[in-house]
Amino acid sequence: MTKEINRVEQAIDVALSGRSCAIVSSGDPGIYAMAGLAFEICKKKNIKITPFSSCERSVNEKSTITVEVIPGIPALCAGASLLGAPLSHDFAAISLSDLLTPWAVIEKRIEAAASADFIIVLYNPKSKKRTRQLETAQKIILKYRDKKTPAGIVVSAMRKDEMVTIIPLEDLHKADVNMQTIIFIGNSTSFTYLDFMVTPRGYDRKYSGDIQEI
Amino acid sequence: MTKEINRVEQAIDVALSGRSCAIVSSGDPGIYAMAGLAFEICKKKNIKITPFSSCERSVNEKSTITVEVIPGIPALCAGASLLGAPLSHDFAAISLSDLLTPWAVIEKRIEAAASADFIIVLYNPKSKKRTRQLETAQKIILKYRDKKTPAGIVVSAMRKDEMVTIIPLEDLHKADVNMQTIIFIGNSTSFTYLDFMVTPRGYDRKYSGDIQEI
Repeated sequence: MTKEINRVEQAIDVALSGRSCAIVSSGDPGIYAMAGLAFEICKKKNIKITPFSSCERSVNEKSTITVEVIPGIPALCAGASLLGAPLSHDFAAISLSDLLTPWAVIEKRIEAAASADFIIVLYNPKSKKRTRQLETAQKIILKYRDKKTPAGIVVSAMRKDEMVTIIPLEDLHKADVNMQTIIFIGNSTSFTYLDFMVTPRGYDRKYSGDIQEI
Repeated sequence: MTKEINRVEQAIDVALSGRSCAIVSSGDPGIYAMAGLAFEICKKKNIKITPFSSCERSVNEKSTITVEVIPGIPALCAGASLLGAPLSHDFAAISLSDLLTPWAVIEKRIEAAASADFIIVLYNPKSKKRTRQLETAQKIILKYRDKKTPAGIVVSAMRKDEMVTIIPLEDLHKADVNMQTIIFIGNSTSFTYLDFMVTPRGYDRKYSGDIQEI
């Protein structure tokens, strides 16, 4: 984390000197990544920044540097695509890392997401020092979800050591996971079909003529 | 929705005839999009499909067609990038469309997401026939969130009629939104800095040496 702060501060220094600079993250920079940190540091240092956008936006003061966040394909989309279509309905993304977030907050989120029948996407499920949270998460979710609910596990999506498996929720505590793993736990309608994990888009199929919301 | 089913069925027919076929969606096909529908129809028609993947996956039966889901940049990442970094922590994505999902389920999800301090991403906030749900969602979230909580509104992200605004949650019911709009409602730590909306990555900043989870 200290290295990340240094990276952002160095990039800001380059930009303040009048040159362009890019901070490169994997996946999408806005999801559990570097973009937020960059803005936090700009605010802390009171650096006047303006969006690099063609939209008309109000500019409060004379800007010092221009900032553009360029979206990418987040790990949750890459991982989901390897499983099939697990994310087709409402979902909640939760990081199990309690370095910067109290575990009580994380537990409350797992409980809320499970009780309201969200598809649940777990980031940072386990690290070498932090091993119990995944089993605790599983226990909480099992209070609300059938034990056979599919859980899709994607390690290192789209990289050379990629691994994709689908197991029932009751076996999640046994799964081989690490910090490069994302876990997709289905909602009450999710199912597996052959090698795929799928969540339907709705609870009832209503096809009365040409239904389209405009 | 009928047209979407026809599209998928036609694509399957092309593939069954031995030719390759691509179903093209905007954004990412796995988030509130077409991929789930494609798998549902394959299952309904009992078509034997196998993943187009280099991973070792168990193949249950002789496959008829090979299916690959290619991830894209979802609207939530495109929209977030235009606002700054609203999505840097745990978030819940909820569609306000009750065509296929009972409103009671949607309300329960809004309540759960708000009470557990998720960043909330609202899809399909309003259509010509369906106008009350956004105000109801706002009222629910206001029970748990300060009325000045930033709400980022992105219309037609990255398209020619793109519009990006940030308003306080208390004014959300007045916002000009449609089916091409995504709304990002901050958690309790989200803030605005100049023209940007930002959610910090954690609740406490702890920088004791070189903290890294491995």
